[in-house]
Amino acid sequence: MFSIEVTAGLSIFAGVLTYHLIPKFSEMFIKANLYGIDLNKSSGVKVPEATGVVTGCVFLMVTFLMIPLTYSDFLLQDKNEKFPHEEFVQLIAALLSMTCMLLLGFADDVLDLRWRHKLLLPSMASLPMLMVYYVTENRTEIVVPLLLRGILGTSVKLGILYYVYMGLLAVFATNAINILAGINGLEVGQSLIIAVSVMVFNLTSLSGLSRSYHEFSLYFILPYIGTTTALLVHNWYPSKVFAGDTFCYFSGMTFAVVSILGHFSKTLLLFFIPQILNFLYSLPQLFHILPCPRHRLPKYIKEDDVVTMSTTTANWNEIKPLGKLIINVLSKLGFLHVIRKETKGNETVQYNNLTIINLILKFYGPMHEQSLTITLLGVQFVCSILAFMVRYPLAHLLFGEIVV
Amino acid sequence: MFSIEVTAGLSIFAGVLTYHLIPKFSEMFIKANLYGIDLNKSSGVKVPEATGVVTGCVFLMVTFLMIPLTYSDFLLQDKNEKFPHEEFVQLIAALLSMTCMLLLGFADDVLDLRWRHKLLLPSMASLPMLMVYYVTENRTEIVVPLLLRGILGTSVKLGILYYVYMGLLAVFATNAINILAGINGLEVGQSLIIAVSVMVFNLTSLSGLSRSYHEFSLYFILPYIGTTTALLVHNWYPSKVFAGDTFCYFSGMTFAVVSILGHFSKTLLLFFIPQILNFLYSLPQLFHILPCPRHRLPKYIKEDDVVTMSTTTANWNEIKPLGKLIINVLSKLGFLHVIRKETKGNETVQYNNLTIINLILKFYGPMHEQSLTITLLGVQFVCSILAFMVRYPLAHLLFGEIVV
Repeated sequence: MFSIEVTAGLSIFAGVLTYHLIPKFSEMFIKANLYGIDLNKSSGVKVPEATGVVTGCVFLMVTFLMIPLTYSDFLLQDKNEKFPHEEFVQLIAALLSMTCMLLLGFADDVLDLRWRHKLLLPSMASLPMLMVYYVTENRTEIVVPLLLRGILGTSVKLGILYYVYMGLLAVFATNAINILAGINGLEVGQSLIIAVSVMVFNLTSLSGLSRSYHEFSLYFILPYIGTTTALLVHNWYPSKVFAGDTFCYFSGMTFAVVSILGHFSKTLLLFFIPQILNFLYSLPQLFHILPCPRHRLPKYIKEDDVVTMSTTTANWNEIKPLGKLIINVLSKLGFLHVIRKETKGNETVQYNNLTIINLILKFYGPMHEQSLTITLLGVQFVCSILAFMVRYPLAHLLFGEIVV
Repeated sequence: MFSIEVTAGLSIFAGVLTYHLIPKFSEMFIKANLYGIDLNKSSGVKVPEATGVVTGCVFLMVTFLMIPLTYSDFLLQDKNEKFPHEEFVQLIAALLSMTCMLLLGFADDVLDLRWRHKLLLPSMASLPMLMVYYVTENRTEIVVPLLLRGILGTSVKLGILYYVYMGLLAVFATNAINILAGINGLEVGQSLIIAVSVMVFNLTSLSGLSRSYHEFSLYFILPYIGTTTALLVHNWYPSKVFAGDTFCYFSGMTFAVVSILGHFSKTLLLFFIPQILNFLYSLPQLFHILPCPRHRLPKYIKEDDVVTMSTTTANWNEIKPLGKLIINVLSKLGFLHVIRKETKGNETVQYNNLTIINLILKFYGPMHEQSLTITLLGVQFVCSILAFMVRYPLAHLLFGEIVV
């Protein structure tokens, strides 16, 4: 039987274990060439990279050990009658998808894979979950919003499109955290806030009909919170370790898996508002409509120990018409810092790189790195509060009833 | 429905894909500092290490895709009646254990973990399989050999001891391949012969009552053979890539998983005779009863382009009594090359390192590296033939009937 108390206890244990293990492995990571130099510090110290693999492994060990604790009492009863086979196999498949993502994330950190792999890897890692979903449930109906019911009826069977949606959600969740990153504590901090939001949502939904879905999610989210909190302590400003793509991928897949198999993927998207905004704001650079440098991190100003927005400079005439339009519109709306210069008949344009990290720095000016992280995590927190406030009224408005 | 033809077809596809992928990733591995220098060559070329991660990932992708092919037709029937829930969840758990081992093996190759981890990692990776076995079957009876039935009865319930046995088998299988390694093509070649032996055994047992167990095994063994054959082409003398601990661990776990969940672990041990002999022969050095150098590879003689047995030299008086006994006995039996010298009252002893690789070189003298690999693979092949010859008579003798 799933017990929140036991899971919470094991999650605290997982956190304490992770907290002690990370420093022990640091030396090994540096020896193995797995380190980065913190660009926003003047020290030039080697910081171990990809330590998300340590938190991931502790997470897996704990969730493996929880299997018999959760399911063994079914053995004592008449087995074939009550055993929740589908839930059980989904749980193992969820673990398989997460392990897969951890492996592929770590391979990415080690081998420095190309951009196209970043889309391929989460698709591959989500395969077990999708395959098992197909074999066990294959429920692809969605409830139609009230406005469209006249045309479509109350529910629509999406079929293969539903699998595409689930796959895309996994790809989005893994990469969305990865592109809102780069300053101390941000990846891990935002993931922790999302995880806590999911936990609160699960805990407040336990009384409903879908109790088992929310227990399913808590099974993973609690140990995730335990290990991630431990990582955050070491990753907080000034970072002694970096979490790496390993952590971002693993986190994204965890969120995708619990929300898909827990049937609350729409609610999850509400917790991802900052990531969605950052993704939309980044689109012109991600799709190379506007020139994009390799790194879009804020720029470090050594004299004042602050960071300021980083910019890209391009030849105005070489920018495509759509790019020019985007620059003009965003600039008019106050969402882009733009400087146009003409020197010797050569017209250049300089604009801040399109991440909400730089956008915050545009609005508030240069600030200390830690303040920037706190501001961004504040945004994440406020968005979670908003998500809780709008979720139920929104569901009522769209679907006429509370839909989970 | 499981189809051998479809699985074989996909396995060939997996092999072709692996064959083309490995060279594409080679450059990346070297850039990431994942390479070794071949000690038995004079070229000093950097050879990519840990490429087992590529074959492992292709293997996983193919076995993931096979899930709906194998199980989806149950969906069309009355679901709860016939769906083989326990087999299905064991299949997913088997994949989870293998993925876990691939991750941990790769982490070992990258981070160069310590010896104690080499025992810990396979234990951890076998957890999902053991946990799921506990929840789904928890069958721990073993049939008692005829001789002991007067005392113990026809079967004995081993309880937790059975789990210890399964865990130890996983630890043994993963490490046994890893310590019979070090010359071009040996790890991959021996694994391939074991896999083919398992396949033949499964195919010849399909007509019996335990058909589903053997199909279960074939589900994994065929894609394993496909990907491993492709790896062997690149790993054969002179190796263009090394397979790494990643491959040895992954292979060992694959064998452990299919034989445990396929209920033929005793038969598997027959295919592991060379590894068992090598393990027993290595024991004095592994347990430091006799001094053991870091590497026990054969020694390369550049002038003749051959390899010869490597030796360890130690002070005779510093060797423990048990060690002296072992040296004397093995030497008398002709299984150890020993040279004792006395210079200036200092008595030293030189003996070949205790691996069957060096033992072959003791018997046949220095030979070309490729000939050595072929000889060792010949031993592996002959042992497999022997295993098939003794298996049925042995089972009859011990258990009075054919027991699978």
